[in-house]
Amino acid sequence: MSEAAAPGYLQRVVAAALEEDLGPGDVTSAACIPVAEACRFAIRAKGSGVVAGMDAAREVFRQVDPRVTFAALVSDGVPVAPGDVLAEGEGAARSVLAAERTALNLLQQLSGVATLTAEFVRRVAHTKARIVDTRKTVPGLRYLQKQAVRAGGGHNHRLGLHDAVLIKNNHIAAVGGVAAAVRAAKHNVGHMVKIEVEVRSLQELQEALDAGPDAVLLDNMTPAQMREAVRLTNGRALLEASGGVSLDTVAAIADTGVDLISVGLLTHSAPALDLHLLLERDPQTGDYCAPGE
Amino acid sequence: MSEAAAPGYLQRVVAAALEEDLGPGDVTSAACIPVAEACRFAIRAKGSGVVAGMDAAREVFRQVDPRVTFAALVSDGVPVAPGDVLAEGEGAARSVLAAERTALNLLQQLSGVATLTAEFVRRVAHTKARIVDTRKTVPGLRYLQKQAVRAGGGHNHRLGLHDAVLIKNNHIAAVGGVAAAVRAAKHNVGHMVKIEVEVRSLQELQEALDAGPDAVLLDNMTPAQMREAVRLTNGRALLEASGGVSLDTVAAIADTGVDLISVGLLTHSAPALDLHLLLERDPQTGDYCAPGE
Amino acid sequence: MSEAAAPGYLQRVVAAALEEDLGPGDVTSAACIPVAEACRFAIRAKGSGVVAGMDAAREVFRQVDPRVTFAALVSDGVPVAPGDVLAEGEGAARSVLAAERTALNLLQQLSGVATLTAEFVRRVAHTKARIVDTRKTVPGLRYLQKQAVRAGGGHNHRLGLHDAVLIKNNHIAAVGGVAAAVRAAKHNVGHMVKIEVEVRSLQELQEALDAGPDAVLLDNMTPAQMREAVRLTNGRALLEASGGVSLDTVAAIADTGVDLISVGLLTHSAPALDLHLLLERDPQTGDYCAPGE
Amino acid sequence: MSEAAAPGYLQRVVAAALEEDLGPGDVTSAACIPVAEACRFAIRAKGSGVVAGMDAAREVFRQVDPRVTFAALVSDGVPVAPGDVLAEGEGAARSVLAAERTALNLLQQLSGVATLTAEFVRRVAHTKARIVDTRKTVPGLRYLQKQAVRAGGGHNHRLGLHDAVLIKNNHIAAVGGVAAAVRAAKHNVGHMVKIEVEVRSLQELQEALDAGPDAVLLDNMTPAQMREAVRLTNGRALLEASGGVSLDTVAAIADTGVDLISVGLLTHSAPALDLHLLLERDPQTGDYCAPGE
Amino acid sequence: MSEAAAPGYLQRVVAAALEEDLGPGDVTSAACIPVAEACRFAIRAKGSGVVAGMDAAREVFRQVDPRVTFAALVSDGVPVAPGDVLAEGEGAARSVLAAERTALNLLQQLSGVATLTAEFVRRVAHTKARIVDTRKTVPGLRYLQKQAVRAGGGHNHRLGLHDAVLIKNNHIAAVGGVAAAVRAAKHNVGHMVKIEVEVRSLQELQEALDAGPDAVLLDNMTPAQMREAVRLTNGRALLEASGGVSLDTVAAIADTGVDLISVGLLTHSAPALDLHLLLERDPQTGDYCAPGE
Amino acid sequence: MSEAAAPGYLQRVVAAALEEDLGPGDVTSAACIPVAEACRFAIRAKGSGVVAGMDAAREVFRQVDPRVTFAALVSDGVPVAPGDVLAEGEGAARSVLAAERTALNLLQQLSGVATLTAEFVRRVAHTKARIVDTRKTVPGLRYLQKQAVRAGGGHNHRLGLHDAVLIKNNHIAAVGGVAAAVRAAKHNVGHMVKIEVEVRSLQELQEALDAGPDAVLLDNMTPAQMREAVRLTNGRALLEASGGVSLDTVAAIADTGVDLISVGLLTHSAPALDLHLLLERDPQTGDYCAPGE
Repeated sequence: MSEAAAPGYLQRVVAAALEEDLGPGDVTSAACIPVAEACRFAIRAKGSGVVAGMDAAREVFRQVDPRVTFAALVSDGVPVAPGDVLAEGEGAARSVLAAERTALNLLQQLSGVATLTAEFVRRVAHTKARIVDTRKTVPGLRYLQKQAVRAGGGHNHRLGLHDAVLIKNNHIAAVGGVAAAVRAAKHNVGHMVKIEVEVRSLQELQEALDAGPDAVLLDNMTPAQMREAVRLTNGRALLEASGGVSLDTVAAIADTGVDLISVGLLTHSAPALDLHLLLERDPQTGDYCAPGE
Repeated sequence: MSEAAAPGYLQRVVAAALEEDLGPGDVTSAACIPVAEACRFAIRAKGSGVVAGMDAAREVFRQVDPRVTFAALVSDGVPVAPGDVLAEGEGAARSVLAAERTALNLLQQLSGVATLTAEFVRRVAHTKARIVDTRKTVPGLRYLQKQAVRAGGGHNHRLGLHDAVLIKNNHIAAVGGVAAAVRAAKHNVGHMVKIEVEVRSLQELQEALDAGPDAVLLDNMTPAQMREAVRLTNGRALLEASGGVSLDTVAAIADTGVDLISVGLLTHSAPALDLHLLLERDPQTGDYCAPGE
Repeated sequence: MSEAAAPGYLQRVVAAALEEDLGPGDVTSAACIPVAEACRFAIRAKGSGVVAGMDAAREVFRQVDPRVTFAALVSDGVPVAPGDVLAEGEGAARSVLAAERTALNLLQQLSGVATLTAEFVRRVAHTKARIVDTRKTVPGLRYLQKQAVRAGGGHNHRLGLHDAVLIKNNHIAAVGGVAAAVRAAKHNVGHMVKIEVEVRSLQELQEALDAGPDAVLLDNMTPAQMREAVRLTNGRALLEASGGVSLDTVAAIADTGVDLISVGLLTHSAPALDLHLLLERDPQTGDYCAPGE
Repeated sequence: MSEAAAPGYLQRVVAAALEEDLGPGDVTSAACIPVAEACRFAIRAKGSGVVAGMDAAREVFRQVDPRVTFAALVSDGVPVAPGDVLAEGEGAARSVLAAERTALNLLQQLSGVATLTAEFVRRVAHTKARIVDTRKTVPGLRYLQKQAVRAGGGHNHRLGLHDAVLIKNNHIAAVGGVAAAVRAAKHNVGHMVKIEVEVRSLQELQEALDAGPDAVLLDNMTPAQMREAVRLTNGRALLEASGGVSLDTVAAIADTGVDLISVGLLTHSAPALDLHLLLERDPQTGDYCAPGE
Repeated sequence: MSEAAAPGYLQRVVAAALEEDLGPGDVTSAACIPVAEACRFAIRAKGSGVVAGMDAAREVFRQVDPRVTFAALVSDGVPVAPGDVLAEGEGAARSVLAAERTALNLLQQLSGVATLTAEFVRRVAHTKARIVDTRKTVPGLRYLQKQAVRAGGGHNHRLGLHDAVLIKNNHIAAVGGVAAAVRAAKHNVGHMVKIEVEVRSLQELQEALDAGPDAVLLDNMTPAQMREAVRLTNGRALLEASGGVSLDTVAAIADTGVDLISVGLLTHSAPALDLHLLLERDPQTGDYCAPGE
Repeated sequence: MSEAAAPGYLQRVVAAALEEDLGPGDVTSAACIPVAEACRFAIRAKGSGVVAGMDAAREVFRQVDPRVTFAALVSDGVPVAPGDVLAEGEGAARSVLAAERTALNLLQQLSGVATLTAEFVRRVAHTKARIVDTRKTVPGLRYLQKQAVRAGGGHNHRLGLHDAVLIKNNHIAAVGGVAAAVRAAKHNVGHMVKIEVEVRSLQELQEALDAGPDAVLLDNMTPAQMREAVRLTNGRALLEASGGVSLDTVAAIADTGVDLISVGLLTHSAPALDLHLLLERDPQTGDYCAPGE
């Protein structure tokens, strides 16, 4: 365990993924490949990007067959280029092929998140702005995606509805005002819970600041508005830019002086990183497989 | 139940997603919104695309609070434009806000898949080629993604390793040859299991056809090679084009006469469709919320 | 859903409790009570205290037999005295008796927590100090116990290791110093995560304050030390008194001016509130049971 | 497996407890403690009592990180005094700190049960009376609490509603009489199921004895009544004293000659035994932690 | 809930069975039957036997589609002949066909158990002997099979290893003697646990009786030996005949005067009762299906 | 992993079976057998048949106690005679006895399926006909039973409703005709899904063949009809005989020239193979058990 979730979480995610793919068993391997056949394999990059999800890939192989070895050659957060080997191992050919797709699907999805995050981070590196994720995650993979965001150099926003207060426009509509909402939150929540509030104008920002939140989310403001917001706030709260941020716009947003830029794309629309698993020829026999023990 | 999976499947997917987002409860609503406050809401499109995942969104609201109403105004497979209402309902404000993000995350992910699929289908509409999915799905969401592919006008390839034979290069490397692998499969698998084999050259295609598979996957061939493959095969097996297919290349591939074009992008890299949930003002009072029963 | 956890949580807790008690079925009822026999029941207090866990009790009856009615006459947080009716209902006698013990066990445990919390809160009511819980909860019941603490007028500390930073002596031992640990935390954690640090002396408090945490836990200090800590801190951080706090000592601690007093007893050692479920005679026939539909 | 439950039971209890505490991961350790840092720890008693739950504590460490060693120095049922070491081990500091609280919560709860049981047992040691538990257990922990009762020298009453008949006042109210209820039970239940019946007077006892139960529960009788009950029964059935038994009253009850005394307090209100986990300095370097493998 | 298990048990059994059969959805119905098509159905007997499992069948339909009606025309324990209708209902054709096989598989398996039990019971009806089941049950269906045995007029032996003591030859081998084993059990187990011991000779029976068990299992004795065992025992313990009991031998065994005859065949080898589900023509239109709401 | 299902499947089946049998623990062993006692055991055949389920038996021992050794002496598919040893091992006596019945129940059930299958296969060995299973399986054990059918020399029909189309009389009733149903299926299902249709007359067969299914199921035809069906079909589709096939009739059916004969009895009514587990005496000391480590 490094910074990972409760052990049951990864086990459940991987078991569900294997159940979808493997179900009652791999009919192709059962039909074509002798039980005793063993082989060596490598997972290689076909595209360029930043790796994430190595623990998940390892867990896939462990669940399918604990006797298959799995050695990670790179860690989460490391950049790779086409041809680079991410991991290698060996074991029963049937086991390797049963684990292949599920392991790749996890690695590709999560490395895609890390890769896109890293690109956003790179574009704001000249500023103090942090790239942060949102709750717009793939259902069932949130914690793994949040790890992938960190692997890409980003930071995590709150985990969910339970660990921090974020007062959004729907709450304000329900309560009747920015300041009233912040004050209600400060009165009611525990002392270990931070409070952020969404504002849509500089006037709302002023109202919000008077109520004393830890952070303010600037919803769909222009860079000019953000710059003014930074000036107005003057360090009294963290400022988060949010709303339709893209690779094209992120640098200009960071230049306004905001502390945080949240990007939904990181977790809901990151393209997968292209990877593949190849059986390796035995350097001596030239064969891909050989009878195992 | 229409064409849906075993009832436990959707329940588990939604419960896991809610557990990630909601965990021990929504501290913002608990702090800001009175228990009795009720409201009306609508889910609207911000982008253009094809809807999928409506059953999943409904299940989110049902699990959070069965007293919240949820009326779908469009079905899976229907195209929407910015501003269109996909669904509307009403209930306790706390319940609506607790369900909001998880319902949207599912709808956005799955509608993204349907939208991208529909675009691929549109580009090959002048041919007989079918757009099919792959096993490169988001772990934990495979069956829902496969429904979304159908909603977009695509067709499903096999569900996983268990329901059909697809002999790929790693199997052929392990067994020693295309024809040997197909013959082993035909001898060993049950009579309700179809057999497809991957080939990387016209020579391998010839070998494969002699062994009599149901379908042949043409791996990373050029359109010229595919055209020749279609001629050689002459209807003896279905032909599937595969490998790096994009919106730019798909029409040319379809023009070669292949029967099927499989596209990994559909499920591993489809951008989410942009949607949002808005509280609606009461047309009479002008308020967003009112004390409920 | 009011301020409750993800819907699966309560269902799982109740299902596990029923499985322990009911297992393959109630042999006593099966042997003694006709299937069709129906009855009315009331849950009454035998002791005095504050109620918590009403949702959990309702869920027990719902899972055992959704046709049994269950009407709560008091809400969580309400004080009751011996003889008071907490809830009443009617249904098949076998179902009522199958649900009885599990419903009472949950209500008694959680009302015990609320009752003890309320007593602590009462003793510090003349001060600004908040009574807060700890992570010393009964395994499997944490979220319900934390609701019970709120029902008793207390506040919640962090939920677990994942939602806030609390640097304790074991971390400081591992890192090498109070200030270094706080600074590492401030640098690494997300902007929605609060940071508290445990100190064992005024000198450590000074070190800690220089690093700028949100709160400081004063570990096992005397009231005199706490008073001095309050003076030294002068509002720069919240101060939490912790360590062996009892009903006898809590008022004196609150009088020192600390902001928070955490009490492990609330959740690990609260005596159960004494409750019982009684079948009620039919006011007209004088019988306890009657043939149902 | 010694006398333990089906292996899935303990795994589920521990996994649920870890999920509550650890959730998506320990942010404090992730922020403050290097991944490679290793340490030694000891779990020590701060109070006096009887140990129970050692298997549960071991399972916590195993689930968090199977590479952390965990050596129990005492077994369930052994008395400890302040300062005594219950268990020690070593491993990654992050893993040890992630497991700490959940392991302690289980050990403290269950040792609390064993400790209170042992005190009741001690007070009746001069008699033949056995101290037995009830179904008033903490939801989700019944089997572990029942093991803890045995560790404290007590005996177990039935496991739940499924494994033995206990006809209580609610059943008698439903059926119409003590003797009728016992006879129904004897006629209907399997030959491996024991039958006990609750009586509230000596007259009911007489009725019950005529029907031939295995045991009779004397509900809230005075010692004088119990003595008379023992005389009347004359060995024809086991007699169990029940109802509001406390440490103050138990010896007098045992002196009446009853066979069994059931005590709800053992499992619903036992105060936790105070324990803590401490990192240990390396005897040579004097440091708490060191870079691990 | 009548005499049924904890509500989660049946739900889990049915959900697992549906997951196996239905998985990601019924491709045949999806391809052939319009979503809106509704129909009426009846479950009829093709063979003769005793019904069991009606609750399980109802739960299958409920899980697949709660809007399908399901009306049981006979209860568990009722004999049926070819052509008899067991249950009928109506709803979406896709839902009915998705539930059909899983509902029938449960009903057929459990009715097979009840039918075979009833035949054994009939053959010993002239004696006092009870037919009882064993732990030789189908994994995962024990509690349902035990209900089915009761539906067939049999009685249940212990539920499992946890609720009663049965000292078998392997235990005696491990402990060193019949009497020693019984005495150990009497000393160690709770007062609500019955004790039975297996003997293989009249000498062992004598030893066993001296130690005072509740029951003695006569392992593979001849009727002559059993008769002598009955004489020797003279009511001091219940006697159970066990070992290779068949329909041909059971009457002669019962005639020896034993109290109980346990039959493994009841649950491990009962042939399924033949049932089928038929769509019913609409009496007015003559059609099987019609567009539903 | 050889041809086995997703790893979670077998784990769940075994865990559920152990939970039923072992529940809160084995009271007999706990009362009679010292914790440290170790022993050797062998699983032996009492009847003759074909083995299946060895992986399941191994998993039982692994879950109960991973330190117990379990060495399979025969593989699935191997015939055994009375007295043959199937597996042997050693470990703590309490663990061996806790695992015994659940391991045997799985082995006996699955070996019963393999044994009956092998007998059917033997009777058609002089023909090309394959014996295939049906969906009439024991709920919860389908995948294991399908493995057992293969172990007995049979072949698997489709897994469930999701992986292949089988248009049965209820579908035809709903759709309105054999040919229409086949054509709908061919148009709608994916290219990896096979299509079979049930016919009840030669006229329906003709209709079906014109629509081009992969296979046709001949429902309850006489051998003479089947022979005519074979002649009519002339290789255009596979022919499956179905309906009330028994050991007495199967050879005559196979002689008609059909390709496949499906037999529901294989999985719903196969008698268990008789097996037992015996502790073995130490060859040197002559004792069954000895103090272990």
